[in-house]
Amino acid sequence: MRAAIFRGPGIVEVGDRPDPVIEAPTDAVVRVVLACVCGSDLWYFRGESPHAVGSIGHEFIGVVERVGSDVDGLSPGDLVVAPFIYSDMSCPHCRNGSTISCVQGGNFGDGEIDGGQGQAVRVPLSGSTLVPVPGSGHSEETLRSLLALSDVMSTGHHAAVSAGVGKGDTVAVVGDGAVGLSAVLAAKRLGAERIIALSRHPQRQQLAHEFGATDIVAGRGDEANQAVLGLTGGIGVDAALECVGTDQSIATAFAIARPGSTVGIVGVPHGEVPFATAFFRNVGWRGGPAPARIYIRELMTDVLDGTIDPGRVFDYETDLDHIGDAYRAMDERRAIKSLIRVGSL
Amino acid sequence: MRAAIFRGPGIVEVGDRPDPVIEAPTDAVVRVVLACVCGSDLWYFRGESPHAVGSIGHEFIGVVERVGSDVDGLSPGDLVVAPFIYSDMSCPHCRNGSTISCVQGGNFGDGEIDGGQGQAVRVPLSGSTLVPVPGSGHSEETLRSLLALSDVMSTGHHAAVSAGVGKGDTVAVVGDGAVGLSAVLAAKRLGAERIIALSRHPQRQQLAHEFGATDIVAGRGDEANQAVLGLTGGIGVDAALECVGTDQSIATAFAIARPGSTVGIVGVPHGEVPFATAFFRNVGWRGGPAPARIYIRELMTDVLDGTIDPGRVFDYETDLDHIGDAYRAMDERRAIKSLIRVGSL
Repeated sequence: MRAAIFRGPGIVEVGDRPDPVIEAPTDAVVRVVLACVCGSDLWYFRGESPHAVGSIGHEFIGVVERVGSDVDGLSPGDLVVAPFIYSDMSCPHCRNGSTISCVQGGNFGDGEIDGGQGQAVRVPLSGSTLVPVPGSGHSEETLRSLLALSDVMSTGHHAAVSAGVGKGDTVAVVGDGAVGLSAVLAAKRLGAERIIALSRHPQRQQLAHEFGATDIVAGRGDEANQAVLGLTGGIGVDAALECVGTDQSIATAFAIARPGSTVGIVGVPHGEVPFATAFFRNVGWRGGPAPARIYIRELMTDVLDGTIDPGRVFDYETDLDHIGDAYRAMDERRAIKSLIRVGSL
Repeated sequence: MRAAIFRGPGIVEVGDRPDPVIEAPTDAVVRVVLACVCGSDLWYFRGESPHAVGSIGHEFIGVVERVGSDVDGLSPGDLVVAPFIYSDMSCPHCRNGSTISCVQGGNFGDGEIDGGQGQAVRVPLSGSTLVPVPGSGHSEETLRSLLALSDVMSTGHHAAVSAGVGKGDTVAVVGDGAVGLSAVLAAKRLGAERIIALSRHPQRQQLAHEFGATDIVAGRGDEANQAVLGLTGGIGVDAALECVGTDQSIATAFAIARPGSTVGIVGVPHGEVPFATAFFRNVGWRGGPAPARIYIRELMTDVLDGTIDPGRVFDYETDLDHIGDAYRAMDERRAIKSLIRVGSL
């Protein structure tokens, strides 16, 4: 089959990989319909984090082609959403809701295991990993939003859940990438009354507004902190959602969080938390990689009935042959998030 | 009046301070009955944190002597418990439950404001700070437990609340000081089924058992981590309560917390949190100085009906004239916590 191959920093291109087959009775083989590029894929592309040469990509929707002898609840022909990791849903960590720590789980697209950016994927633990999509004849718009559940929307939702966003809250979202924008949508969905989006890009500000942001703060660093405190009467926000991961964005999230609140962090740490000052203000933190498998069902209901449309974060589109362009568009910040059209339904 | 005076590292002795008077209409003057020494007072005593020369101590119960013209709900003769800070209970932070950040609030015993370790205290914002004790004729045991609500038991409770301890949970308490032991009692009270106390001192292990600990781990560092993981089938605990604040104790709390859990931190930070590793395990943290004013009523009910007896952490007792001995007993770890008998009811 044809699939994206990571060859080294700056080089992701289409190449040949073996056609996936059922190796374990819990496997399924899925033909990929839509895939996309994650912000975290860019670290490898930029050489900031190591990645093995080989398969890459962990977000996809597709159609089940074959299932192993020990797979329940999935049949060939099913349209499925794949969470960005596979998990058994039966180990203690999965039962505790922490699928990311599944004792049998693992990553797609790690060089060896098939990635989402390819024509097909062997999905381990498929019965407990893939989420079938009910109904048929879904619109292009719906398919794009289903793809967003694979990672980016689930991750934005995780920021909001981790921070305990509830009805009537004032929320600030630090970061206007696809995750930050998804966090705006998630906060709105959870009942936040006021949502302050920190963004300096007019196009992203516009989408943030459409996703539910009531206020935009365009500054950075102390200027942004002061602006958010000004908007909240000096109190700070009930929930700060950190969707970047740099020292500056983390510092801002903690500075604008009101005493007693919890910062929801999903931006992968490239900085430190201001522990001592946060402690004396009773500002805590929760978060990490999202347990997407657990969130997908709940979010899918809202996608299918049109309540949310997270697929709008995809503002660049290409096919598998042009996978490198998809990376470059995001790397050069020409795209919020790149979608790869791989196959048809 | 006679009161403890902090003169510099290693020197706390009784001396004369002006008799407190009503200065603001929201003030009350309280005659102190019982006071005690906090672990945080020891930092000043040891010269590890700066403290102004003058008043010291922030934990006390006493009897109201006089109230200002604008004090509701308090009358001369009332037995009251003082939370370790004063607060207005009406500012946005207090309404959000974060009394420690009260915009009008402040500390007792900061060198200037009267400390709890003295014959009397002018209590600012007294109507919203002091908690009257219902009933009369309380036993010595009850009075000691009421004193514990002023700080140490409220702080142990805050560790458990911050970590989200609930019915059936497996909890580990890092630290066997008075706060750690109170955290054991708090976890038991909140329904924890299994409570692992990390302690190397036989006397403290014994009290931990009596407060509800089901298991004792006597090691430290990696040895302790492995022991707790061993007791939990390699999973870790549902809630780790950090009641020390050193690098080692913080590292242990995060290492033994199961994926997806929240570490409750009340040990004042003298170390850093392992942010990146915690992030990838979805282990968060909440905590800080306890909103004692909010907890005292709830905990007092259980003290008065005999459900909990947090006063058992006081294992050394003296009077105001021997205040220096009270500090030295704790500094030399001969005492878990020192009680100062100041006046009679």
